Amino acid sequence: MSHTSSTYALPDPLPLDSGQELTDAVVAYQTYGTLNADKSNAILICHALTGDQYVASDHPITGKPGWWERMVGPSKPIDTDRYHIICANVIGSCMGSSGPASIAADGEPYAMRFPVITIRDMVRGLVALLDGLGIEQLHAVVGGSMGGMQALSLAANWPERAARVLVIASTARHSAQNIAFHEVGRQAIMADPAWADGDYYGADTRPDNGLAVARMAAHITYLSEEGLTEKFGRRLQDRDAKSFGFDADFQVESYLRYQGSGFTQRFDANSYLYITRAMDYFDLAEEHGGKLGDAFAGTSARFCIVSFDTDWLYPTAESRHVVHALNASGAKVSFVELSAPNGHDSFLLAHEQLDRVVKGFVE
Amino acid sequence: MSHTSSTYALPDPLPLDSGQELTDAVVAYQTYGTLNADKSNAILICHALTGDQYVASDHPITGKPGWWERMVGPSKPIDTDRYHIICANVIGSCMGSSGPASIAADGEPYAMRFPVITIRDMVRGLVALLDGLGIEQLHAVVGGSMGGMQALSLAANWPERAARVLVIASTARHSAQNIAFHEVGRQAIMADPAWADGDYYGADTRPDNGLAVARMAAHITYLSEEGLTEKFGRRLQDRDAKSFGFDADFQVESYLRYQGSGFTQRFDANSYLYITRAMDYFDLAEEHGGKLGDAFAGTSARFCIVSFDTDWLYPTAESRHVVHALNASGAKVSFVELSAPNGHDSFLLAHEQLDRVVKGFVE
Repeated sequence: MSHTSSTYALPDPLPLDSGQELTDAVVAYQTYGTLNADKSNAILICHALTGDQYVASDHPITGKPGWWERMVGPSKPIDTDRYHIICANVIGSCMGSSGPASIAADGEPYAMRFPVITIRDMVRGLVALLDGLGIEQLHAVVGGSMGGMQALSLAANWPERAARVLVIASTARHSAQNIAFHEVGRQAIMADPAWADGDYYGADTRPDNGLAVARMAAHITYLSEEGLTEKFGRRLQDRDAKSFGFDADFQVESYLRYQGSGFTQRFDANSYLYITRAMDYFDLAEEHGGKLGDAFAGTSARFCIVSFDTDWLYPTAESRHVVHALNASGAKVSFVELSAPNGHDSFLLAHEQLDRVVKGFVE
Repeated sequence: MSHTSSTYALPDPLPLDSGQELTDAVVAYQTYGTLNADKSNAILICHALTGDQYVASDHPITGKPGWWERMVGPSKPIDTDRYHIICANVIGSCMGSSGPASIAADGEPYAMRFPVITIRDMVRGLVALLDGLGIEQLHAVVGGSMGGMQALSLAANWPERAARVLVIASTARHSAQNIAFHEVGRQAIMADPAWADGDYYGADTRPDNGLAVARMAAHITYLSEEGLTEKFGRRLQDRDAKSFGFDADFQVESYLRYQGSGFTQRFDANSYLYITRAMDYFDLAEEHGGKLGDAFAGTSARFCIVSFDTDWLYPTAESRHVVHALNASGAKVSFVELSAPNGHDSFLLAHEQLDRVVKGFVE
């Protein structure tokens, strides 16, 4: 499948919810499939916290396949033979779009001088990209987890820009527990002496230990208790008996350590701070006078909301909350709770019913 | 209420599940109320991971009231006018019983040379204490959380030593998710350069940052999602608007940071490693040929198992699992699931129904 890697330099400073603005911002993005003449077949896919624009092409650092290759491609549920797929790295991230590792006007990395951003700011960056590409209305905007937050934010704040809005395993607000887990991760990073108040870009060491711990804690929330039990139970790792030491005796320990250390190869700790902060700040109702229904007052888009029954990070109740708000605002919305053993991460994994829902909705 | 602080030096080396033995072990304990002439009115209370022997008297470091003062005292559910209460610091901990901070035979702290222990090893230490006190059979053994594991282990391995066994908010095995959360905590401690492979006792700095992160992560698991939402929601801490920075904007962040930093004042990081390891190793069925019912084959004690409906650390299903095993072995068992908003921590909080259950059972 043909795909292009591009970087778009925003012509204007990007205004931010904080009141600051981001100058000389760039958005790195991938496209797949061909944009038609009237630019009506574009689908924007929004990525999750630790995701990136490589939705259906190999990751340039890890060499692994795109994070949603099973969903995006020729004859796949999001069919690149019919649609022009755009997936952009969010502002604040570290895969080419402006973020804390980017070079500021003074020639040094922003580090913690990068302005604190919100989900809406990320979407502002995406809308600026759509403007640059001359795409007035998306055929659909699609996102899982934090990607779903962006899809909801786009629908609420730029209601004319997407005809279809597909939100998977997401929420319209971060709960106290969501915030708490993110705060643990941030504290783990900021407790790492190598973090050095964020100024580690030229240093010999990076806050990999703290970032790995943050990833481990978060990773537990992406999986269901049942899924973990089924996958690992209390099975030992490469040994017949407990070591009576502090090695990774259990498979689940070994798996988590692997997840933590692997993550540090491809992700910037400061970006983790900024993006988790944006997610914690996310409360779509609060942005719209405290009533979620009002967020969608201007919409004529069709919505599809999908949750997974074992997702305890963004449980079905949060999706229902969004659906009720959409109903209250008279929007066209369908809702499905899918059964899946793997918790929040189910949206990334093989799931035939999810494939059918996505395919049916975007067509 | 009168109470005594004592330390018991074990006359013999303590054999351990690892095959090692702990020499010159001591057990620090508190007693409340008077032991009767035939020594038949003793109740052993077993403490949780970060608990200690100060169940009903002020903590010597923090000055705070005992951790279960609402349950233990004159005319309280565990009535010190009638019973002689014993609460001992577990082996591996840091409040006077032998643990990694204790001085080894070579005059230096054990640190990571302390042998890895199990829940059963902790109970071996408690049984040695009972032997020393001349108490052949406890009126009851009572424990919540890790204390419940000890109560179950005592009942399974020394079935003649307790007439009543009360297990609250506990489990007969650590699940993959339980292990995963503990592993995050251990990695946070071991990633802290001040941990220094455990050899920090004479150093200027201690691994307080890592220990605080470990505590924060664990603390989330002690509270229910609903409880966190009710207590904190998305309310801001001492401010009217978000700071667009990385301070503790949200009350839940501030609370967690306070929990983390407060904990480091009273707890030793190496003890945290050892005790979490012991809990992760806990699988009472595995100790008894793989069948939990067999663990209780020799018992004639009465059991009471209590769970809380919002406890997602050791959910009701785990308590039911214990109850079924006790039923299978023909033991006398009662079971109650209590409704409480606060998750696992409910066993430490005011709960009238819990009071009635405890009082009714121990009498």
